[in-house]
Amino acid sequence: MSTFPLEIGTTCDMHVHLRDGQMCDLVTPTVREGGINVAYIMPNLQPPITTIQQVKEYKAKLESLSPSTKFLMSFYLNEDITPELLDEAKDYIHGIKVYPAGVTTNSKNGVDPTDFTPFYPVLEKMQQYGLVLNIHGENPHKEGSNTTVMSAEPEFLPVLETLHNRFPTLKIVLEHSTTAAAINAVKKINSPYVAATITIHHLFLTIDDVVGSPLNFCKPVAKTYDDKRALIETALSGDSRFFLGTDSAPHIVCNKNKLLGCAAGVYVSKYCVQILAQFWKDNNGDWNNFKKFLSSNGLKFYDLEEKELPQEKCYLIEKKVQIEDEIFDNNGISVIPFKAGETLDFDVEWR
Amino acid sequence: MSTFPLEIGTTCDMHVHLRDGQMCDLVTPTVREGGINVAYIMPNLQPPITTIQQVKEYKAKLESLSPSTKFLMSFYLNEDITPELLDEAKDYIHGIKVYPAGVTTNSKNGVDPTDFTPFYPVLEKMQQYGLVLNIHGENPHKEGSNTTVMSAEPEFLPVLETLHNRFPTLKIVLEHSTTAAAINAVKKINSPYVAATITIHHLFLTIDDVVGSPLNFCKPVAKTYDDKRALIETALSGDSRFFLGTDSAPHIVCNKNKLLGCAAGVYVSKYCVQILAQFWKDNNGDWNNFKKFLSSNGLKFYDLEEKELPQEKCYLIEKKVQIEDEIFDNNGISVIPFKAGETLDFDVEWR
Repeated sequence: MSTFPLEIGTTCDMHVHLRDGQMCDLVTPTVREGGINVAYIMPNLQPPITTIQQVKEYKAKLESLSPSTKFLMSFYLNEDITPELLDEAKDYIHGIKVYPAGVTTNSKNGVDPTDFTPFYPVLEKMQQYGLVLNIHGENPHKEGSNTTVMSAEPEFLPVLETLHNRFPTLKIVLEHSTTAAAINAVKKINSPYVAATITIHHLFLTIDDVVGSPLNFCKPVAKTYDDKRALIETALSGDSRFFLGTDSAPHIVCNKNKLLGCAAGVYVSKYCVQILAQFWKDNNGDWNNFKKFLSSNGLKFYDLEEKELPQEKCYLIEKKVQIEDEIFDNNGISVIPFKAGETLDFDVEWR
Repeated sequence: MSTFPLEIGTTCDMHVHLRDGQMCDLVTPTVREGGINVAYIMPNLQPPITTIQQVKEYKAKLESLSPSTKFLMSFYLNEDITPELLDEAKDYIHGIKVYPAGVTTNSKNGVDPTDFTPFYPVLEKMQQYGLVLNIHGENPHKEGSNTTVMSAEPEFLPVLETLHNRFPTLKIVLEHSTTAAAINAVKKINSPYVAATITIHHLFLTIDDVVGSPLNFCKPVAKTYDDKRALIETALSGDSRFFLGTDSAPHIVCNKNKLLGCAAGVYVSKYCVQILAQFWKDNNGDWNNFKKFLSSNGLKFYDLEEKELPQEKCYLIEKKVQIEDEIFDNNGISVIPFKAGETLDFDVEWR
């Protein structure tokens, strides 16, 4: 039993989409409302973030929208990213995100995951500077193949091992892992340089909850019950190689609520720590492991020093919170959160 | 090369949902417009069809809506169906549909597929009278199991074999087969008494087309590319054990277009033969096998005599047809057809 309020300290969501434009204005402040004060920001804007100037401008914008939040910035891996660029950029970014071409929102400028060799000089430099390679680990479907959304992640895993073997001290995060196979691959590699993030929604969903329910549709899609059980067990374990990265990915409602081709992404930021705490309670989780999964595992992997971190500390309090049905801005756009309408037993406070 | 107009003769869709109320009024006439004049009608109304009186009334209603169409009627298997009932009902129905409890629209009154033994006396009588057992072959998910929409059909297949072994001359149709495993199971049983239907939409879709696209969501869900290839190959082959059953299943748009829990079902009736002909052309299919898949295989399995069949014959003509975006009635309900907005090279004529 833990006593509440529970001090969690610095809280990390190591995979967050904050978009740009109106949506950015709407969701950026919700990161802090959802109990997170260190957020690793995805670079898949249009155009993708590949220059220091873009990073500076985007970070300044985010900080103006939410001054107490620490934003960790990233580049989008494509041909614009050169080893020379990283000599200067290393002071502005914490990592580089790689998307296999075509697998998810704004990933058409991505990389062929069967051949990373054109990027080996970049990876070499990243390894040297301690920059993190954040991988969206899905093998894209090719004409004639049998790759589907169900098999795309397991089929990608050999690439993870290849990259690690070639760059053994390059920090790699397999993002939003959805399968027992992914968890096992990271455990098998068993290196302090290779970790994985786990989202909140993948602790709740399977493919059964995705078909016919576009609100739950994201990439990678939720898989089987055995996969979900593996993710739950791993998150609850506090294992240092696994930490929270929600992949919170807001889309305007009209793009989620379509008959064909709904946008992929689940938005969770505004209720992030609240939902995770509820999950922990409902699964009789160890609250020390809660702090590991939500705070210390991520901080250690990203090697963030105390002095870089926000002053505020997050406290979990016992308080009934109802998740909004829909979150509006003042200009007519809105986003529907994961678990809209549900009631939770926890809220957060900053002290 | 075939010459058009191509006489197809009597055309069969051996799995059609015509619903009741306004939707029934809207879609029943579209069966003939879609080139079908023999339709096997599903009994999963609310309440399900389990009495001779219900069959008579429903059939009379359908005939009043579409006098030239031959409707083959069925019962819904539950505890109301007794061997004694079948002594009289055999003259009014062609078969009985079995739904595993809870797997699809209006199936909550269904059967536990792990234990058909309570229905063995009914199956015995069906075998005796030549009534067809139409099976929705999915194993429902149970708490703690790993059954998902992806594995539910393969997991059901041993039940098919068990039933056939126990009732070797009972006619069984594995409805809307979606997997290579299902095709192989039917081929392995290799009996003139065991067949499978194949839908039109499963010749086009995989799970990749279902996630995020509620219009393509049906049960069983479309599976992998290998599964789709197996279905395509089997349909094109003309193999007598496989024939068309579209599972055309209309839902009002507001029930398909939801963020969570969209209705399962793909509506195809109004463009059934037109889309199938386009598929055949695009896959360089043998037009003799087209007639087998669409006409003779089903007629033979259901043992329909020439004198029972409609007088009209279906002809396939070369004519550009654009599938409507949405099909309306005059009272405000509508249904969106599969492949809405696409253009086809074929239409049908009745002579």
